[in-house]
Amino acid sequence: MSEAIGFIGLGLLGLPVATNLVDAGHSLRVYNRTAAKAAPLVERGVYLASRPADVVTPGGVVVTLVWDDASLEDVVKSDGFLERLGPGGVHISMSTVLPETARRLERLHAQQGCAYVEAPIFGRPEAAAARRLWIPVAGKQPAKDRVRPLLEAMGAQGIFDFGEAVGAATTVKLVGNFLIVSAAHSLTEALSMAEKSGVDPKAVVEMLTTTLFAAPIYQSYGKMIAEKTPAMQSPIPLKDVGLFKRTAEQVESPTPISSHLYELLRV
Amino acid sequence: MSEAIGFIGLGLLGLPVATNLVDAGHSLRVYNRTAAKAAPLVERGVYLASRPADVVTPGGVVVTLVWDDASLEDVVKSDGFLERLGPGGVHISMSTVLPETARRLERLHAQQGCAYVEAPIFGRPEAAAARRLWIPVAGKQPAKDRVRPLLEAMGAQGIFDFGEAVGAATTVKLVGNFLIVSAAHSLTEALSMAEKSGVDPKAVVEMLTTTLFAAPIYQSYGKMIAEKTPAMQSPIPLKDVGLFKRTAEQVESPTPISSHLYELLRV
Repeated sequence: MSEAIGFIGLGLLGLPVATNLVDAGHSLRVYNRTAAKAAPLVERGVYLASRPADVVTPGGVVVTLVWDDASLEDVVKSDGFLERLGPGGVHISMSTVLPETARRLERLHAQQGCAYVEAPIFGRPEAAAARRLWIPVAGKQPAKDRVRPLLEAMGAQGIFDFGEAVGAATTVKLVGNFLIVSAAHSLTEALSMAEKSGVDPKAVVEMLTTTLFAAPIYQSYGKMIAEKTPAMQSPIPLKDVGLFKRTAEQVESPTPISSHLYELLRV
Repeated sequence: MSEAIGFIGLGLLGLPVATNLVDAGHSLRVYNRTAAKAAPLVERGVYLASRPADVVTPGGVVVTLVWDDASLEDVVKSDGFLERLGPGGVHISMSTVLPETARRLERLHAQQGCAYVEAPIFGRPEAAAARRLWIPVAGKQPAKDRVRPLLEAMGAQGIFDFGEAVGAATTVKLVGNFLIVSAAHSLTEALSMAEKSGVDPKAVVEMLTTTLFAAPIYQSYGKMIAEKTPAMQSPIPLKDVGLFKRTAEQVESPTPISSHLYELLRV
């Protein structure tokens, strides 16, 4: 059954995810701070709203995939957004934010009778287009049950349920992104050493990523690094390692690697 | 065809590797600095020598799997070792050492007409027993061709040829060990943050190691860390990250992560 969905945030990841929903036959209403980015969807008949609340259907489902905590708070607190979503409405929050932000926003939703499901996305834009995303979820069970087919339509090849307590899926996302950034930086350093020692980095990647490190992250970053394709030129690593570090500090967990990585990324 | 083999170094990894050779029907002569560790092999009729040179057959194959650069140099320079190995002899060096040490030792071998094949081992002792080792090799082609069946008999499930220039396989080994130590430390930090945030580390490991990080290293260390099994209590990480860092410095490759890890490990 196709459901009318509001979709906010048409960035590098948001656009292919929203496109997957349209491809699956869903009727979308979208909003993006930079309206021009909606053009490929507008061409396909999607309604482009001029403010977040205008994509919301009362009691319906709204998806956000925005840059950071502040952008997400701006949307949730924007005029009419939660009031319109109202009782029975579900907000699928897919941005990478602090777990504490997710918990605070969930309380605001509860005050209006709507549910907050966190479903941050693991996967680069190419993976979204190829419908190969991994999604950890947390939130109230009935809301998760309702949105599961939508997550699949967005391109999830796997959905991992971390329970009803909001913050858990966001924590998993921060853990994963920290591990990705750490792995990518270690690979960069390792392959540089190999190359300067006269050993072909591609041969090293070939061996390691078919044996001990036979995992998608090492395979994709190993290939990019060995071929000198810029892999990590985005501001995402700095932001997400910062969120990991801040969360670790809040729960008094040690940060020997993340705080060092954060300093390296800030340069 | 079974070949008489000298085997030096019966540590945690050496003993199961030597045992695999005996199981494959090879006649072994062994030496170990701490003679008592040879007991399980002596019980099976293996000859225990009192000095390295006494395991060597002229023109034969001798294997070393010792702790570090100094131990390896001691063996190679020990009285009669290279002289006895002599023309046509092959030394399979499986220890993790500096590439420059490997190159220097190869030159000493060449002076006696014998070949130095480097074949450092990726795999923990359990992996050796299960015959699931990964081995990068480098050295002269005829010598590599001769020892390949022996490496398979030792428990290699995969052998990766990095050419004729000695130092290359050792470089790959240092690269791999650096990546392993970095991954294990990052996992420790990440799973601690998850647990202190109220998220079950086992569930996090289950998701990440069946998706983005579906690789043997993350699966084995993730399980150990999530179950609080001490995973890295050995002096190997400090030693090998030190060798990686020193090699990187020698070839003027940056060490932002390895030098930090080295300091963390020294504490």
